[in-house]
Amino acid sequence: MPVNYATPAADQLFPVAGVRLGVAEAEIRKKNRRDLTLVVLDAGCTVAGVFTQNRFCAAPVQICRQHLAAGQEIRALIVNTGIANAGTGEPGRQTAQETCVAVGRLLGVDAGQVLPFSTGVILEPLPVERIKAGLPAVFADLKADNWHAAAHGIMTTDTVAKAASRQVTVNGKTVTISGVSKGAGMIRPNMATMLGFLATDAGIAQSLLDKLVKEAADASFNCITVDGDTSTNDSYVMIATGQSGAGFTTESDTGWAEVKAAIIAVSVELAQAIVRDGEGATKFITVAVQGGKDVEECRKVGYAIGHSPLVKTAFFASDPNLGRILAAVGYAGIGDLDVDGVKVWLDDVLVAEKGGRAAAYREEDGARVMAQAEITVRVDLGRGAAQANVYTCDFSYDYVKINADYRS
Amino acid sequence: MPVNYATPAADQLFPVAGVRLGVAEAEIRKKNRRDLTLVVLDAGCTVAGVFTQNRFCAAPVQICRQHLAAGQEIRALIVNTGIANAGTGEPGRQTAQETCVAVGRLLGVDAGQVLPFSTGVILEPLPVERIKAGLPAVFADLKADNWHAAAHGIMTTDTVAKAASRQVTVNGKTVTISGVSKGAGMIRPNMATMLGFLATDAGIAQSLLDKLVKEAADASFNCITVDGDTSTNDSYVMIATGQSGAGFTTESDTGWAEVKAAIIAVSVELAQAIVRDGEGATKFITVAVQGGKDVEECRKVGYAIGHSPLVKTAFFASDPNLGRILAAVGYAGIGDLDVDGVKVWLDDVLVAEKGGRAAAYREEDGARVMAQAEITVRVDLGRGAAQANVYTCDFSYDYVKINADYRS
Repeated sequence: MPVNYATPAADQLFPVAGVRLGVAEAEIRKKNRRDLTLVVLDAGCTVAGVFTQNRFCAAPVQICRQHLAAGQEIRALIVNTGIANAGTGEPGRQTAQETCVAVGRLLGVDAGQVLPFSTGVILEPLPVERIKAGLPAVFADLKADNWHAAAHGIMTTDTVAKAASRQVTVNGKTVTISGVSKGAGMIRPNMATMLGFLATDAGIAQSLLDKLVKEAADASFNCITVDGDTSTNDSYVMIATGQSGAGFTTESDTGWAEVKAAIIAVSVELAQAIVRDGEGATKFITVAVQGGKDVEECRKVGYAIGHSPLVKTAFFASDPNLGRILAAVGYAGIGDLDVDGVKVWLDDVLVAEKGGRAAAYREEDGARVMAQAEITVRVDLGRGAAQANVYTCDFSYDYVKINADYRS
Repeated sequence: MPVNYATPAADQLFPVAGVRLGVAEAEIRKKNRRDLTLVVLDAGCTVAGVFTQNRFCAAPVQICRQHLAAGQEIRALIVNTGIANAGTGEPGRQTAQETCVAVGRLLGVDAGQVLPFSTGVILEPLPVERIKAGLPAVFADLKADNWHAAAHGIMTTDTVAKAASRQVTVNGKTVTISGVSKGAGMIRPNMATMLGFLATDAGIAQSLLDKLVKEAADASFNCITVDGDTSTNDSYVMIATGQSGAGFTTESDTGWAEVKAAIIAVSVELAQAIVRDGEGATKFITVAVQGGKDVEECRKVGYAIGHSPLVKTAFFASDPNLGRILAAVGYAGIGDLDVDGVKVWLDDVLVAEKGGRAAAYREEDGARVMAQAEITVRVDLGRGAAQANVYTCDFSYDYVKINADYRS
């Protein structure tokens, strides 16, 4: 059961003018499963993406990077679940490319205008013939109000489909933003893994979109951790169709701040949904680090706390175990940290300062916060003005059960 | 139950001439528990240590560093369990110093010639009066053949006492090396944590010993991980009494290579014992990384594998889950790693090469190795001659149970 998360209803996910989505069952690995999703873009869109830093990056990630770098206008995204096409070497790159050729042929565009995505079991060959066989069905299913189906179409072992949508009015135009994501651990057992797609009908110049996708990923998908493992297939792709009539080319354009904030908010919602559906998660934790010299050191501290199995098991146990949190701050890698200047809160309860437990801290106050399903650990490093958030979940028996017992 | 480890019998732990040890019950936190250990050194010893890098380092660690840096001849080590004197601020430093003063008075030496060590619950004040009250009893217990008792005296939540001993003959002299260690997680719940003490009757010049303790720690205690957390109290201290008559001042001295190798071997044995007794451990894993450009990158890969909850749960499940191991290699942080040149073995079974599963690999061969209690994961990065080992254990239900249910 995800922590405080339910998939939005279909009518809460607004269509984005210029984007049509289709979903079908292609039996890529199992029968009776929507496992193929096609996203078709009108001409005139800009598209940008960020991808896994894992050196064992999957074949489709390699092809995506190539196609985006080549600069042809992107017209389609093809996503399959079941098989990740990762750890498949040169043959894997060929099947990913072959998929693009088939989609291009169907749509009358170049293979280089298609981005391929795969998620599922790794080290297994992609059954490209089944994808080809499924293309007519996804093509026939294409429609603008299909985001809900697409959110389901990209699921693997997620327990819920993940989607978010909102609208903002700028310069007299309504701008729509919709997105979907999938993933439940950084790598679900043998699964490879995190995918996110967001589209807006705002027009966004390529250079501005390139910058935005990185910034949005840094504020969302790059802030989450379930188990600290980085998947081979992680991809986050952003599409701007321009069909709302609201267009932006620079950061200083009127209305850009609002649109950017809304896009980042949807990104955060999509990313947090992955943590809320984290393997075995019973709690959703925000680690909010402030007072750092730079964002980098705030992130180090956030991840030290967010990755620590000891901290995460304490959350599972609702145990206000301050020692584990302080120790994680201490080993986060800030060489000149003055621990006497560090303060730590659980929600609004000051628990540590001056190198140890806060004088006024009472165990029952910490225990009250730790019993909640949503908890904020706030850390003030007391040495600057930078801040960063990390989102994580607790570490339960079910995490071990899922990862030890399950073999896809 | 530790993995393939039992405490050596008392008569297998050789006395080290120049070192006497005493153990007593001081009721520091609980009754009927040997919780105070005194190690007294004859005049003329050299002593060196390495300590936690955690910025929240405990008060005794701060005092140890000061006393070693001041350069007075060290004549005693005092170790208490029960309370770690960590996260205790300035009052904690005062009680650690007060302990040294009391030991110095008892032995007729300066407080600066005493090194204090504490392990146990953090964020609680050290009951220094109980330590003082216990000093006559540890003093009365001092004897040379007391290493077995000392190994028990420094235990906290370890399930077995940890000790190792060996002798080598060099230049016609018998050199003895004995040591003890404690620790079961990098931080056992609220416990803070890893301690190691080694003594030899070889004579080792201070500069040579300073170098050796770092090198030995890098090959042993700095190669182990149970949960990736770095404790506030970690300390490893090495003593050279010189009473064997075999003395060394430089790396090129005859016989030094043998003595050094034996000291490192004892260090590795003491460090591995901690992993074998790791929280919930059912398997002992050696991650042997070779073919790196430098040791640092080999260690990165070793730790990426050794820390991954996904890899560790796969070991628990005896699941030859190659994808998780390859993914960990891929995200270890070697930016220019050519994954097609990486090879991975489980013991003698080649499981991965050329960016994916090895052609000849059969699942049953991997499963056979994974079923063992001791497993070596060998990774060849194929880009240099450097190598490094990391020792770790698997990740079981009991890890979560111990860390979620237990509150000391």
